[in-house]
Amino acid sequence: MLDDKNLYKTPISEYGEFGLIKHLTENFENINLSTSQSIGDDASILDAKNKKVVISTDLLIENVHFNLTYTPLKHLGYKSVVVGISDIVAMNAIPEQIMVSIAISNRFPVEALEEIYSGIQAACKRYRIDLVGGDTASSNLGLVINITSIGYADESEIVYRKGAKANDLLIASGDLGGAYFGLQVLERENTAFKSNPNLQPDLAGYSYLLERQLKPEARTDIKTLLKEMNILPTSMIDISDGLASEILHLSDQSNVGFTIYEDKVPMDNQVITTAEEFGINPVTGILNGGEDYELLFTISINDLDKIKNNPNFSIIGHATTEKNNVLITKGNTESIPLTAQGWDAYLKKKNKI
Amino acid sequence: MLDDKNLYKTPISEYGEFGLIKHLTENFENINLSTSQSIGDDASILDAKNKKVVISTDLLIENVHFNLTYTPLKHLGYKSVVVGISDIVAMNAIPEQIMVSIAISNRFPVEALEEIYSGIQAACKRYRIDLVGGDTASSNLGLVINITSIGYADESEIVYRKGAKANDLLIASGDLGGAYFGLQVLERENTAFKSNPNLQPDLAGYSYLLERQLKPEARTDIKTLLKEMNILPTSMIDISDGLASEILHLSDQSNVGFTIYEDKVPMDNQVITTAEEFGINPVTGILNGGEDYELLFTISINDLDKIKNNPNFSIIGHATTEKNNVLITKGNTESIPLTAQGWDAYLKKKNKI
Repeated sequence: MLDDKNLYKTPISEYGEFGLIKHLTENFENINLSTSQSIGDDASILDAKNKKVVISTDLLIENVHFNLTYTPLKHLGYKSVVVGISDIVAMNAIPEQIMVSIAISNRFPVEALEEIYSGIQAACKRYRIDLVGGDTASSNLGLVINITSIGYADESEIVYRKGAKANDLLIASGDLGGAYFGLQVLERENTAFKSNPNLQPDLAGYSYLLERQLKPEARTDIKTLLKEMNILPTSMIDISDGLASEILHLSDQSNVGFTIYEDKVPMDNQVITTAEEFGINPVTGILNGGEDYELLFTISINDLDKIKNNPNFSIIGHATTEKNNVLITKGNTESIPLTAQGWDAYLKKKNKI
Repeated sequence: MLDDKNLYKTPISEYGEFGLIKHLTENFENINLSTSQSIGDDASILDAKNKKVVISTDLLIENVHFNLTYTPLKHLGYKSVVVGISDIVAMNAIPEQIMVSIAISNRFPVEALEEIYSGIQAACKRYRIDLVGGDTASSNLGLVINITSIGYADESEIVYRKGAKANDLLIASGDLGGAYFGLQVLERENTAFKSNPNLQPDLAGYSYLLERQLKPEARTDIKTLLKEMNILPTSMIDISDGLASEILHLSDQSNVGFTIYEDKVPMDNQVITTAEEFGINPVTGILNGGEDYELLFTISINDLDKIKNNPNFSIIGHATTEKNNVLITKGNTESIPLTAQGWDAYLKKKNKI
């Protein structure tokens, strides 16, 4: 509903595989010194200098991770890069390259691929990333995108999931839940449109949520912000699968428990009003939702004064000695244990294995 | 027809995403010093020391790159690794890590994934590769595998597609066409089986071809062989898309032409007899077929004596000064120009974009 399909006309079969890759990537420019040789050979060459290489891969599947009914292809390209480099950022490293594999049905014209690549290029420019490789294939199936992300860090700067200690503070960057409630709005309007195609989608008043869902940003700025504050997190993860899932990962891998302060979980006003409209507790949405691409990390309690009034960060809890015991508390009410139930149910809903 | 589906029973939904990855990879052991941190965090950490990082990605799609009717899942896992690391080998680098993303339908049980991973593990052991990451997702579509391959080389050792000079000798490792004619046999038996399911496939006498198609090997040994012979190729590529395609790549990127000696193209006796059976010129099959995963490279004519009697290698032609003019000649007959037509037609047949 967001793209005018009539504008598209060039069949993919007009290009060979290599001609197509060349056509799609010819306007990409490499800017990082770590990129020694880019697209055009059997493999690409990277120069890590004295740094460690940080590498990750993400697979995005049509109708599992995205719905083309309401996802513009350019946004999808942009978001794919963000999803990929967010994993590198979560290690406190600097992302510098991506490789993109795309399988696409012949029902898509070349212009559709150009749209995806224009989004990829916009994200590469925004984040100073070089596109150094990839693969394309046809698919009778649907659209499939795989992003391999590569970054660099000094060994002493890398932050794992495993370093949290009891009494460390648990911090979230930005605000949470926007992407999840944006998805609820898009799904609702899509359902309404399917039952009555004359209905125009009513998206007014949800602009922040829709941007968080359709064009999220990766927090490549956090590494610098923390360095300026002279803080090195003790553990870190990106918030991609819902806050509950990420806290449980830190708990499991750091051998600590956590107590979460429900009323400290940061959220935009649109999240609050939209959650009310849908009859969902906003914190439940944040715990079990996902796709925030904010960072969740722990710091030593000795660093409290450096961060406590910084508007970029919210202290949402603290680590405890009891491994895997994650409690959520609100004011004087009883603490409720947070289990893996939440995100597993969410994953099933999202049809992930 | 090669797997007994009744043996499989555990639904994938019994595992969460993270539980599933953990289950599938728990028996993998890392052996390379360049693997600093493997699966289990947002990203993996690699240590390139003073070497360059060589990296590539390959996307394999059901019914485009493989047919599960006659491809055992374990072989598919093995072959996926071979396809991936062959690109690293083609840069004269040593592959040391892979990352594997798999999208799989819920119609597959956990045991099917275990079969794929057992093949991946067998290849990892055979080639001393560490599995350092990956992603899994469900797919309503079909089986999708993306392999990211990482290797290392000193800068002075890396061989590109672009270094061939006029009068260089063109060399192929091993023998060619086996995988292509193996595919023809499998397709023929599959067609016969579909028209009469009581027919047993007749695969006797094609064992070498079937092994080349279903369980190819990557030529990780060539780098050492050449080093012992004191030869550094001037250009190199792996033979994955058919010999014609690869020669045209070397020609294009090195700004040279080539003359190919048709009767020097190396082939096994099963290729000759099976080509005859199918009424196909074996060299035509080799030029336009693919999936040999042998190496094609050029060396200086000064190195002729070092290689000319080595049974691992065949001198199949030489480079000329005329860029993009690739001719194939047989004895005293006229030279025929080799165009991109061949492999483009092949790609269309294979449904690649």
